[in-house]
Formats: sequence, structure tokens, C-alpha cells
Amino acid sequence: MTIITLTTDFGTGDHEAGVLKGVIWRIAPHVQIADLSHDITPHNILQAALLLWRATPYFPVGTIHMAVIDPGVGTSRRGIAAHLGSQYFVGPDNGLLSLLLARAEANNENLSIVHLDQPKYWLPEVSKVFHGRDIFAPIAAHLASGIPLSSLGTSIDDPVRIQFPVPTRTRKGWLGQVIHIDHFGNLSTNLNSSHLKPLKEVMIKIKGEQIAGLVSTFGERPAGTLVALLDSSATLAISVVNGSAAQVLNAGVGDEIEVLDA
Amino acid sequence: MTIITLTTDFGTGDHEAGVLKGVIWRIAPHVQIADLSHDITPHNILQAALLLWRATPYFPVGTIHMAVIDPGVGTSRRGIAAHLGSQYFVGPDNGLLSLLLARAEANNENLSIVHLDQPKYWLPEVSKVFHGRDIFAPIAAHLASGIPLSSLGTSIDDPVRIQFPVPTRTRKGWLGQVIHIDHFGNLSTNLNSSHLKPLKEVMIKIKGEQIAGLVSTFGERPAGTLVALLDSSATLAISVVNGSAAQVLNAGVGDEIEVLDA
Amino acid sequence: MTIITLTTDFGTGDHEAGVLKGVIWRIAPHVQIADLSHDITPHNILQAALLLWRATPYFPVGTIHMAVIDPGVGTSRRGIAAHLGSQYFVGPDNGLLSLLLARAEANNENLSIVHLDQPKYWLPEVSKVFHGRDIFAPIAAHLASGIPLSSLGTSIDDPVRIQFPVPTRTRKGWLGQVIHIDHFGNLSTNLNSSHLKPLKEVMIKIKGEQIAGLVSTFGERPAGTLVALLDSSATLAISVVNGSAAQVLNAGVGDEIEVLDA
Repeated sequence: MTIITLTTDFGTGDHEAGVLKGVIWRIAPHVQIADLSHDITPHNILQAALLLWRATPYFPVGTIHMAVIDPGVGTSRRGIAAHLGSQYFVGPDNGLLSLLLARAEANNENLSIVHLDQPKYWLPEVSKVFHGRDIFAPIAAHLASGIPLSSLGTSIDDPVRIQFPVPTRTRKGWLGQVIHIDHFGNLSTNLNSSHLKPLKEVMIKIKGEQIAGLVSTFGERPAGTLVALLDSSATLAISVVNGSAAQVLNAGVGDEIEVLDA
Repeated sequence: MTIITLTTDFGTGDHEAGVLKGVIWRIAPHVQIADLSHDITPHNILQAALLLWRATPYFPVGTIHMAVIDPGVGTSRRGIAAHLGSQYFVGPDNGLLSLLLARAEANNENLSIVHLDQPKYWLPEVSKVFHGRDIFAPIAAHLASGIPLSSLGTSIDDPVRIQFPVPTRTRKGWLGQVIHIDHFGNLSTNLNSSHLKPLKEVMIKIKGEQIAGLVSTFGERPAGTLVALLDSSATLAISVVNGSAAQVLNAGVGDEIEVLDA
Repeated sequence: MTIITLTTDFGTGDHEAGVLKGVIWRIAPHVQIADLSHDITPHNILQAALLLWRATPYFPVGTIHMAVIDPGVGTSRRGIAAHLGSQYFVGPDNGLLSLLLARAEANNENLSIVHLDQPKYWLPEVSKVFHGRDIFAPIAAHLASGIPLSSLGTSIDDPVRIQFPVPTRTRKGWLGQVIHIDHFGNLSTNLNSSHLKPLKEVMIKIKGEQIAGLVSTFGERPAGTLVALLDSSATLAISVVNGSAAQVLNAGVGDEIEVLDA
């Protein structure tokens, strides 16, 4: 049973998210479809790339991840499909693939990417504003049905990569950024255990507050306490126990966070 | 593998949307279930009818579309099931079917509709306030299991139809309306290519703004530009590139839009 | 085909809800997965317990209900799995199971509960902050694959129970509370038909308003009317026809409601 996952910024109040499933099942009736999220902030490629980076390692070998955050739909931006290690990606070539690509390269996994230029694997009529339905869903379904990647397009080696903000060295540690705020108001950052390891006594500065040391889970501190911890993707997160760090700190994506030796 | 799609105004924070799946799988364990949307505005039959009209053509032959926007639940309003061309509909007889019906008639497709009056195909206990769970989900599941439409109820030929707003002629073109605002803030209208074709130089007036000509996709103009285009269902839409036309124009459903020869 | 349902407070904008499906399908590829809700109010155990109580009776024999509202994740709170009558529960031992347990006991159903203490059925690496992914999803999948409950942990008989607010007697009836507000703004209460049956002429007092008698469905009164009725779970609900009782009454969870003999 092949799985196709869906990640879009279509929301769930319109027809766009649901119609993808119809298109897929017309071509590949036995595929399982999992919504990863249709609630990506409109046009937020970085947020979707991050979600894919966090979610994809947990899916079975052969899973096809289709992602459609596509502000450039209908322009000259390419559509692509990729085989990265044991999984597949289908979507616009606008950076959505960046983090999966970087991980596959870091792990020396096999890697092939094609530019989707074979209209016989698309719907017969292609709207200029909905390639999710007319190109990417059919491509994902054909992949699931066993059509090889190499038949779906022409091999390329220059996929678009977007630059994620990178931490910089400070005198006593690292200066990073908030890169995501989750549903609970936890702040995700671009700092991880590699930045923390060299520090003897971790001190964290964010939005004028100081946090001494890390906890290993929320329940170690009373409700309302501001804490720092390594989240389930091993990145540094700032939380308020049973509350919202985003609200308490009035924090947003892009805010600075410094880790240093106390 | 038969597919049942679900369209409701139940939201996703309560038990109602999920419980439908339990009921269906108890009767038809092998059916695939796709949420089209549970985020229809409460009681907005027109919005759901439009969503079904846009989504259903992309589903496989034999798909059963169950829609429960049902302010009249428990009153004398009928429950119905219908076979339209290659697909099925199940839900209250309150106009949800209107656009699917009009299309099936325009296409001369075979058409049969039954009034659901056979309680043996319902749950044993029927709440007066949740026919989605107690009548429509079991009916959809029995249809998926192969029970013929004619066994589920008595044939009727007078389903309720709701009148969608129709464009009117103006001196130099057509006066239409905004009929839906999507997740991105794009404005959908009741105008389509047939209204535009006779015009030599298209000019569009909405909320005091004028838009000259159509673009074929968003990326043809800089971010923030107000544009008009034919959307993925071939209807006239007003958008702001990488933004929300609804916000920029302070527009809502029912607002007037005129297309005319410049 | 075994079914696993998911109930969480993860929301649908992040990776957490979707990643559960990947974990499950890696272990149990043929399982069907149904989202009950990912929109439980963060940390609201009572709301999730209520949703499970309402939804689970409608699922097939053998369904596994996984619920992860887990403010105590990573602390000494136990993880549990339970067999209650014909269905299963997997999640943290924090009261989520309370209402299912009470019902199974009231119905004299067979009942067994285990403390999840067998790491060989978990993911190899367990984050201190995401047991949904690393413990509960694998456990649900192993249950679906046929591993017996008794292999997954050590039998216990003292699961955590949370106390739901209980109605108290008044001179002429019962004093209850609003315990949930649904998507439509209907108010659910902890009163049911057993509290109403002894009353000859039902009068309801809530937020300074009086409602005389019950309707059996919304359509019996004009739009905008405040009505009382037994909802689809046979509990007393307060509604505004085609409107929101929560808004009209400015009502919230915990507000008092009295039923009395007029």
C-alpha cells in the first residue's frame, strides 16, 4: 500500500484540498492519502519545508510527499519530482525541497530529481492557477502506480534552494532566530544540540528574558514558567509550561535568541 | 475501492465529523473516506453546493458524495440520495444538490433521485438533530456496499433547488456578484468566460476599482497588484498577487462586479 | 481492516498530527486511520474525554482510539492501553479514559488496562516531549497488528480518573453546568433525560433567561429563538435556532443551568 502525503496552504474550507484526493484515486485507487497539513500560512515555503523535514523521516519507505505552496503557479517556475533516499517528493521547484535535499546529501543518500515536462502524465486540461490538481496530484498518483521517476520528466541537478537563517557566532555562544511558532505557542529556533554542547552552563536570552539551563520536559516546572528545552526534532525550543511562549514573550518568527555560557 | 466524500459544517473540534466515519466503516469496512470540507460556514447551503460543483468532477466513477449542511434536520424536509451521471449524492433535500443537478441535466446524464424513506437502512435509533450520523452515513455506506438506490427510497422528481444569483445584462456588459471568498482572499464570482468572450477589451469594475484586462496567472504582476483572471473552475476571480483581494477591497459575498467593453 | 482513530490537541498547522500516521503505517500498513479531532483546546482533557465518549460507540468492534492530550508528557505520568468492551484506548494516564471507563463499568463490559512499560514496542528513540509519536502511535499500530494487550505492558487497576462536574438537587429540580460549547455555539450540559423525566412541566433557567419546555428539533421555532432540546447524545443542550447560543447568552463552559418544575 503506497502512501501519498499532502502539504498545502489551501486551508480546509474550500474545494482545493479535497479535490486532490479525487484526482489521485482516479489514477491510483489503492493508495492511502494522509493530510500532513493544509494550514500552512499562505505562500510560506519555509514553514512547509520545515514541516516536511520534521515529518518525512517517520513515513514508510516509498512514501510520496506532495507539497503545493505555489505562489509562482503558471509562471516559468518548474514542477519537479524527486527521489531522496527512500522517499519521494512532488511539487513546485521553489525551495520546498531544500531541507529534504540538504539532509539527503548530508546522509549520502541516492538522489534524483526530474523537471516535470511530460504532459501525458498530467490531467488533459491544465489550469494556469491550479497545478496541484492538474499536474502534481496526477504525477504523485502515477509514481504510486509504479511509473518510474525517469519517465515523468528530464533529469536536473539545479533545484531551487532557499536559504534558511543560519546562526552566527557571538563572543560567548550563538545568535539564532525563532523560525516557527507552533499551535501551542512554543517557539522553534534554528539552534540545536550542536550549538549547546560546547557550553558549560547554558544561558538563553530572548526578548529581554533570561533562561538558565534547559529542562527535559514541560512538567519539571510549574505552570506558567518560561523554559527552554530540546524539542522532539532535537532543536532548541522556548515554551511556557501549560501556556504560550509566543503570547507571554510577544514573540514572532525572526526574533533573535542567544545561547551563551553563563 | 469505493470512495465516500464528506462535506459538512460541523467543524473539526467536535465529535460529529469523526463519528460519521465510524458509522460508515461499521457498515462498509473497505470504503475509502475523503473529507472534502467540514469547515463550510454554518448553514451555508450555497457555499457547500458550490464546493461540490467544483470538486465532484475530479472523483472516480461511483464515488458517493455525502453532504450535511442541515438546518432543517428533524423537520419535514426530506432526506435524499441521487445518482447523477457516474456519481452519487446523499444528504438533506434543501438545495445542496442544485448545481450538480443542473450540470447533470445540461450534460443529459442519467439521473435518479429517491426520497429516503426506508428506515431499515438507517441506524436503529434516529436522533431528531443528527441525521448525518443516523441516516445519511448509513445510507452512503449501504450504497457503497452495493444496495441499489431504488431500495433506499421512493423515486422523486421534485428535489429542492436553490436559486443562485444570476448575472444581468448592462449597457456594455454584465453585472454579477461575488459568490465566494476563498482561503487566500480571492473573490469568486458568478461570471465566467461566456460573459467575457463577446467583449473586445475587458474592463472590470468592483468596489470602486477598475481592472483592465485579465491575467492568466498571478505571477504575471508584481506582489500587491489587483488582478482579474479565470480561476481553475473557469469562473472570473479577482485576486491580489500574494495578497488578499477580500482584505484589500474590503469585499464580501454579494458585492457587485461589472464586466464591460472598455 | 482495523481502524485507529486520533484525538489530539496538536492542531493541523504543524507536523505532529500528520507524523502519527507515518509511524502507524510503518508498523501496520493496512490500518485505516480516522482523525476524530486535532482541535481539542490545548491541554483540555475533559473536552477530549467527552468527545471520545460521544464518538466511540459508533465505531466498529476492535477499533483503537488513540488520544494524546498530554501536558504531563515525559514526567512520571504513565502511558496506558486499555481494552473496554469491544474497543481499545491508547494514551496518557491522565483521565482521558474516565468516561469510557465509567460506561464500560456501568455496562459490565470486560475491562483490562495495562501500564505501557515495554519499550520494545516503542520507537527506538523516545523524545521526552512527544510520546504521541514515539510511544502511543507505535503501541496503537502494534495492537492493530495483533500484538495482545498483555504483551504491551503490566496490568493495572488504578487508572487516573477525572471528576466531571455533577448536577446537584435544588428545591424544584437540578442545578447543572455547561460542559462544552460546540462549533455552532450550542451549549452542552451535564444534565440529561434522567434529570428531566420526573418534571411535569420543564422550565430551564440559564444566564438570566427562562426557557419553557423542550423542542425536539431546531426547525420547530423561528430563527433566532432560544430553545432547549435533547441533543444527539441524549444530553440537555441549549441552542439558538440558526444562531449561536454561546454568543446570544454570552455563555461559557462552567456556567450554571437549572432545570425545574414550572
